[in-house]
Amino acid sequence: MPDARGHLLNSHMQQCIENCQDCHKACLETIPHCLQMGGKHAAANHIRLMMDCVEICQTSANFMQRGSDLHVFTCAACAEICDRCGDDCEKMADDPRMASCATMCRRCAESCREMTGHAVHR
Amino acid sequence: MPDARGHLLNSHMQQCIENCQDCHKACLETIPHCLQMGGKHAAANHIRLMMDCVEICQTSANFMQRGSDLHVFTCAACAEICDRCGDDCEKMADDPRMASCATMCRRCAESCREMTGHAVHR
Amino acid sequence: MPDARGHLLNSHMQQCIENCQDCHKACLETIPHCLQMGGKHAAANHIRLMMDCVEICQTSANFMQRGSDLHVFTCAACAEICDRCGDDCEKMADDPRMASCATMCRRCAESCREMTGHAVHR
Amino acid sequence: MPDARGHLLNSHMQQCIENCQDCHKACLETIPHCLQMGGKHAAANHIRLMMDCVEICQTSANFMQRGSDLHVFTCAACAEICDRCGDDCEKMADDPRMASCATMCRRCAESCREMTGHAVHR
Repeated sequence: MPDARGHLLNSHMQQCIENCQDCHKACLETIPHCLQMGGKHAAANHIRLMMDCVEICQTSANFMQRGSDLHVFTCAACAEICDRCGDDCEKMADDPRMASCATMCRRCAESCREMTGHAVHR
Repeated sequence: MPDARGHLLNSHMQQCIENCQDCHKACLETIPHCLQMGGKHAAANHIRLMMDCVEICQTSANFMQRGSDLHVFTCAACAEICDRCGDDCEKMADDPRMASCATMCRRCAESCREMTGHAVHR
Repeated sequence: MPDARGHLLNSHMQQCIENCQDCHKACLETIPHCLQMGGKHAAANHIRLMMDCVEICQTSANFMQRGSDLHVFTCAACAEICDRCGDDCEKMADDPRMASCATMCRRCAESCREMTGHAVHR
Repeated sequence: MPDARGHLLNSHMQQCIENCQDCHKACLETIPHCLQMGGKHAAANHIRLMMDCVEICQTSANFMQRGSDLHVFTCAACAEICDRCGDDCEKMADDPRMASCATMCRRCAESCREMTGHAVHR
């Protein structure tokens, strides 16, 4: 896209792809840690939420990498799911790995939400 | 879920999972056909839309199979994407394979939309 | 494929796709059960193995549905991974859900291995 | 892993994950380009091979990020599939985007093959 707004959108999208990948990586790598910790870390609902987050981040990044306009729908879903996963991780934020995971979830949710907004303005 | 409404929801969800899988299968198997046909069948936007549909149907089915409440968000995205893919396939509905693909997209969109509605009422 | 061998191969492949999907579904739906059971059911290595099995079954089915000759490589990986997941599930086979999961893993491993063999003869 | 060999393996695995992600990204972003170019770029077999490569790179990276020992099987499949995709892209290497895609495929194939070797020595 040749104009300033297009370039802005494009650079935002690159950032959003990276945030999705970072969040995907953080959650996927943290699941084994949670299972080893046991207790609330390994609660069925928490692990499932982490798995949900991993999958929607991957799907959302793939839509953007494929250059699909329909990323607005996957980004909308991703923002909601990352927010919930971030909430859950934050409850265990005395564990630095969970705190770091929560940060990635927040960052991804924020930029996915922003992508949805940009699309609405088109 | 023990009550009648729960059972209904559950049976609707089983149907929705099947519809997602059928739509995933139809679109994935039809992509090589489209590429061999060439012309509008192989237009970049059409193939991308089919790939989008394949991926969100898979993600949406996985969320439901994992028993995640957050399927409402992936089902919402899936309904929108399947509708667009169905529109695109319908434009080539003189080709029986595209007509069949369009039918699967419509069916999946409808049941995903229904899943979203059920969730809203909870 | 017009000849008898082709038809045979094709029908074997349809069966293998179904076995991959059934194993994917069995493992994905059983993960939350394992997490709720706790103990050895929820051991990090077991849950990770179930996640591995879910993902390779999905990938392997997708390769076959896409009509890719390279399914021989994903089927080879799938056979090995399903065998290991089946071994692990069998250790908890006094739990009927794990016994059923083990059966699906065995069936999938066997038909994936067969797909690899067919390909070798081509 | 505390010893020098463990650290080496670990750093090789980090590199392999990155190579899988780079190859996944290169192929996924190049599919729409191929479809727009038409001709041999958009041949059914070429697009399918690119889709195969995208999916196995993703699966292989996920296995490593999940910390699974079974990555040896997905890496083995990934090496074979990336090699074939690299061959196919190289035939169109007068197009810089295909040349770049071929490079990513080669790099991914090489490090996946190396991961398989490391595992054999364990």
